[in-house]
Amino acid sequence: MGRLTGGDPSLLRRINSAVVLHALRTAAPSAAPTLTDLVKLTGLSRPTVEGVIEGLMESGLVMEASAEEGAARRQGRPARRFRFRVEAGHLLGIEIGPHRVAALLADLRGRVVGSASLEVSETASADERLERVREAVADLLRRSGVACGSLRAVGVASPGIVEADGTVRLGTALPEWTGLRLGERLRRSFRCPVLVENDANAAAVAEHWKGAATDSDDVVFVLAGLSPGAGSLIGGRLHRGFGGAAGEIGALHLLGREATPEEVLSTTGQPLHPLDEAQVARVFTLAREGDVRAQAAVERFMRRLVHDVAALVLALDPELVVVGGWAAGLDGVLEPLRAELARYCLRPPRVAQSLLGEAAVATGALRLALDHVEEQLFAVESTVTARR
Amino acid sequence: MGRLTGGDPSLLRRINSAVVLHALRTAAPSAAPTLTDLVKLTGLSRPTVEGVIEGLMESGLVMEASAEEGAARRQGRPARRFRFRVEAGHLLGIEIGPHRVAALLADLRGRVVGSASLEVSETASADERLERVREAVADLLRRSGVACGSLRAVGVASPGIVEADGTVRLGTALPEWTGLRLGERLRRSFRCPVLVENDANAAAVAEHWKGAATDSDDVVFVLAGLSPGAGSLIGGRLHRGFGGAAGEIGALHLLGREATPEEVLSTTGQPLHPLDEAQVARVFTLAREGDVRAQAAVERFMRRLVHDVAALVLALDPELVVVGGWAAGLDGVLEPLRAELARYCLRPPRVAQSLLGEAAVATGALRLALDHVEEQLFAVESTVTARR
Repeated sequence: MGRLTGGDPSLLRRINSAVVLHALRTAAPSAAPTLTDLVKLTGLSRPTVEGVIEGLMESGLVMEASAEEGAARRQGRPARRFRFRVEAGHLLGIEIGPHRVAALLADLRGRVVGSASLEVSETASADERLERVREAVADLLRRSGVACGSLRAVGVASPGIVEADGTVRLGTALPEWTGLRLGERLRRSFRCPVLVENDANAAAVAEHWKGAATDSDDVVFVLAGLSPGAGSLIGGRLHRGFGGAAGEIGALHLLGREATPEEVLSTTGQPLHPLDEAQVARVFTLAREGDVRAQAAVERFMRRLVHDVAALVLALDPELVVVGGWAAGLDGVLEPLRAELARYCLRPPRVAQSLLGEAAVATGALRLALDHVEEQLFAVESTVTARR
Repeated sequence: MGRLTGGDPSLLRRINSAVVLHALRTAAPSAAPTLTDLVKLTGLSRPTVEGVIEGLMESGLVMEASAEEGAARRQGRPARRFRFRVEAGHLLGIEIGPHRVAALLADLRGRVVGSASLEVSETASADERLERVREAVADLLRRSGVACGSLRAVGVASPGIVEADGTVRLGTALPEWTGLRLGERLRRSFRCPVLVENDANAAAVAEHWKGAATDSDDVVFVLAGLSPGAGSLIGGRLHRGFGGAAGEIGALHLLGREATPEEVLSTTGQPLHPLDEAQVARVFTLAREGDVRAQAAVERFMRRLVHDVAALVLALDPELVVVGGWAAGLDGVLEPLRAELARYCLRPPRVAQSLLGEAAVATGALRLALDHVEEQLFAVESTVTARR
């Protein structure tokens, strides 16, 4: 039991504020609540609700609803009605990938109001790549008519192991990425909090929010490619690991002194380029057309993917495995994975394909920005929770 | 935000009760607090503290301290002083293993006041094994002068995947263990809650409580043997997995169509018996003495252990790996493990040997019983925490 407070009045005010805001935020737009409604919904006293509402209106997060918003239940002298101002701020979710940068713009409820993406060369320098991010965001804000000052939080996802301060500890997929102070660089462009996350972690969060994992809290998301990455949710929460490296299962094969990922799918003896997705897709096509060497290469690829996913499943025992990334779009990845996991795992998880596809990483980055804002608005858990 | 309550008076009473009990429980025995002390310590009003103390005394958990317990600070008319009654109940931690059953008896603070263990044959039936448990417990209670009715919770740990209700879903290490309703069977013997857990999970909890992992909240405990099991703590909490099977990494080798664990350490071509620890120790001794076939066997064993631990580390990214189980006692297990993990993990964890050794599993079972009682006494977190 750490910070359990017996009678902290400012904490109590924050809890009450959060309770009222929650009630306003979940009310249907057609039924903006009155003070009386809020008293009933929250169990708080009328003077407490009045005080809280006043504070929330001052902060710009709550406003009086216009007449028609409460029309359905009007009777006699109309009572004042209140609503959460979803338009009081905006959020950005940004993906920085090897081939493209993408951004999603959303209101304070997380509803997407615009998107943009730009191609970028896989050999682009860190400066060039970040410049493309700024271009995409500027274009998106302009087209959406949203001022940069309206942004309340920005989530950013990219390959690599990301530290808590937004520095990339290790990122071999993008040039000049290892050691890059990505959070610090982007904070110069935005005047709001910037949260940086690993791409597979972000995608896991996204699939849980609005993809293939909405009905499960224990999920492993596999970003399947030549060297797979993974993100895990445990009890609905992202598991980053002690050093942010959880799920970086790709190194397991080095232990067995096996071939590198780039050699596994090669049919020529020459390793494939790790980011050359077209070339990889060709190997799969050749295999389907009966090419024996391509079939052997695909089998090697599948065996490795199954092994990596099995290691994650045995270590974590998730309810559900979601497979995304470009390899998930190739035929014949999901079925063998399912069959092999059923064979070797003591409690095989369900296996599903990503529903968000290409949008998963940016969507996850957006959700992280939304989480940050909600934590600020509804900061109850971290202060009231009693921990041993 | 699920069950956030604005103004539930019974919840408030429970929180206040927990706050007062916590203050009493952490007070030094030589300084039993007065009502005035408790008002200061908790921030609650005097009438509230008085009401709470009354309730706690009725439940038998709190009593007035005798004169000398508050002597240090007495002055004028002595104020009433109060203390937590650690002797108000007892806890049991039970290990059910292949070769022995063991039990630890503790007071309500978790301090061990007695222990017992009995040998049992690895071929004993489930009935025989449970009878040995009852014998060991009866002997322990008798020797300690503690009535069975004083037990408030019993923790039990054994090999196998254990479901939430205490049924063993899969347990190949002990005869008749798969499908055994272990919790239900033991609940017949005790008139208090019985909590059943996997042995490696329990050992992980124990090392965190009073072993090699007291200073880390992100820990993988490896119960190293022919087929290793593992338990993980994430953020200080046991990670059981969706189906209780997390850490059962032993099956990973089946995927590579490699030799079974029993074949790995064999020097004769004949598989070893999985539970014949003496035979395994002989192989290690022969290897140290220069036997080439034994050295090759040990190298195979180490390679597999490193691979299994690496899979756990890459999936979970813990701060610390604690190695226990009989293999941890063999020379030359820790150093190679450390070196190989440093070589292949992006962020290598610290590697430490179990400090609790043979006592780890029963100690963990005891901690689970203590957790259960504390949750009941201090049930704040689960009711106040706001969840999305």
